[in-house]
Amino acid sequence: MKRVQLSHGGGGQEMNQLITSLFFRHLGNDILLRNEDAAVLNCQGEIAMTTDCFTVSPLFFAGGNIGKLAVAGTVNDLAMMGAEPQYLSCGFIIEEGLLLDELEAIVISMAEELKVSGAKIVCGDTKVVPKGCADGLFINTTGIGHIRQSGISAHNVQPGDAILVSRDIGCHGACVLSARESLKLVNPIESDCATLWPVINTCFEQKIPIHSLRDATRGGISAVLNEWCETSHVQLVLEDKAIAVSDDVMGVCELFGFEPYDLANEGTFIMAVSADAAEDALAILTQFSEHAAIVGYATQDSPHKTILNSPWGSRRYLDFPNGELLPRIC
Amino acid sequence: MKRVQLSHGGGGQEMNQLITSLFFRHLGNDILLRNEDAAVLNCQGEIAMTTDCFTVSPLFFAGGNIGKLAVAGTVNDLAMMGAEPQYLSCGFIIEEGLLLDELEAIVISMAEELKVSGAKIVCGDTKVVPKGCADGLFINTTGIGHIRQSGISAHNVQPGDAILVSRDIGCHGACVLSARESLKLVNPIESDCATLWPVINTCFEQKIPIHSLRDATRGGISAVLNEWCETSHVQLVLEDKAIAVSDDVMGVCELFGFEPYDLANEGTFIMAVSADAAEDALAILTQFSEHAAIVGYATQDSPHKTILNSPWGSRRYLDFPNGELLPRIC
Repeated sequence: MKRVQLSHGGGGQEMNQLITSLFFRHLGNDILLRNEDAAVLNCQGEIAMTTDCFTVSPLFFAGGNIGKLAVAGTVNDLAMMGAEPQYLSCGFIIEEGLLLDELEAIVISMAEELKVSGAKIVCGDTKVVPKGCADGLFINTTGIGHIRQSGISAHNVQPGDAILVSRDIGCHGACVLSARESLKLVNPIESDCATLWPVINTCFEQKIPIHSLRDATRGGISAVLNEWCETSHVQLVLEDKAIAVSDDVMGVCELFGFEPYDLANEGTFIMAVSADAAEDALAILTQFSEHAAIVGYATQDSPHKTILNSPWGSRRYLDFPNGELLPRIC
Repeated sequence: MKRVQLSHGGGGQEMNQLITSLFFRHLGNDILLRNEDAAVLNCQGEIAMTTDCFTVSPLFFAGGNIGKLAVAGTVNDLAMMGAEPQYLSCGFIIEEGLLLDELEAIVISMAEELKVSGAKIVCGDTKVVPKGCADGLFINTTGIGHIRQSGISAHNVQPGDAILVSRDIGCHGACVLSARESLKLVNPIESDCATLWPVINTCFEQKIPIHSLRDATRGGISAVLNEWCETSHVQLVLEDKAIAVSDDVMGVCELFGFEPYDLANEGTFIMAVSADAAEDALAILTQFSEHAAIVGYATQDSPHKTILNSPWGSRRYLDFPNGELLPRIC
């Protein structure tokens, strides 16, 4: 079982060999293979740029691994700004002793996930730190891409807009939590980790007048909805029962005292769209998940908070998540 | 003494507060303060993109810290491709327990160093991992910028080109090494960590016909020179005595058995330039360091290796650095 050694990060022959035999082999393309200090790209007009560090533990989980997560996460952040994911950078911080087979499996997942959006990794960096100075592997991916539909912004939710959720929530958080606690579930919960570009691209092609889009990662849908209330100065009124949560995720939440609204997702987004286009948007989202739903509306009422209506007529604020949530979820 | 807690990376209120009171406060600009999933930028034409992870230990050293290093390192990689450093992303992986004062000092250094080139941080990400899962702080910076002088490439060293080194070599490596070994030197060695855009920009303004440029970071000038031999199919013949090494750096090398050519630099570059422009280039470089020098020439001879001529008439190959060099140098 070969393992990553410190010399693989030293800038000498061993590093060159690792880069060639692993990263270039699986992720290679014309731009990356130039192997310069920086990639040269052609860009015209408005582009979006986003960055994410991934520190998820464990590195492998049901439905994905840190590599798939890193590609999907950054591609999704671009898509959420109306941008076509085009070019990604990739930085690896590797703990000495990581199995090379594991690293290769992760890199292969990245290559697979890139195919979903057509984005390319165009530059990279590899650092190896001594055993005990990191925990297995951390990945940074930074992405850029042309903006295909401009004006989509967390500042742009309009009173009257319909709020849609793209699928059932909380799967990634519940999956990582149960993997880490070694829960033996009858049906293991799979992460929702996925590249969202196909569904977003379909919305763009069909000219859905999207006002805001955000994938509900750390902090779950609670964090996104509350941010929108603050940045767009709206109140969001949602129907609890319209937001899909699987029985398995609900079970994990009850066991650990979490709310599904606070759990991280990695392939689930919230959309704000003109009410008159809500049904068209829902029709597209439903092609990708049967649990997509219109979950509520934005109003101009005060306070600028998110209100959840329960099926039995009560209402409560859905607050920002607070305190120590599960760390190393992404 | 306040410290970073896990909740500072949770995606909730505590994280928002850290971002606002620390990152936005010191690094804020119009684009960053939009606080979207991705920054929106305007680009026309050829741009360069580069990424680097920084894992240096210790976090603070003579002449800089990990924050200054992260900004200078990425800005320099852009400059080395002929690009004006414009937009940077910044990802922090923080170990729980890092002193907030230390983090702030690092962020302030980043803000200071950005002023040298005029680049801006336009998007960021913060992750906090539990104590023991990282070592203090890791930073990723990814940069993009318009290419001001195209064609500069590691593939473009021409037979006949003069090879210049911008200053005395090995300071960063020797500085970090002596800090880590707690060497008590009469004159502490200062890292050369610096943004190289001002000197490179002056070369562009004066239309120096640069063929290749590279900052000699990990692997030192040995790694750069050997890479050029391979990618440009040239032999490089250098005069040992023309390459400046301070007595202090030479002392550390003798103590630990390193070659100064293999030691990392963080503000030192190698340039290949048409021989007839070599004196003009040197005149510019000398404005920034009295130790800048023309150190040799490229030829079309085989083998495509770097040859060092010693002052007493012997010659030897300068090979790629090999094996375990000092880890966590950058």
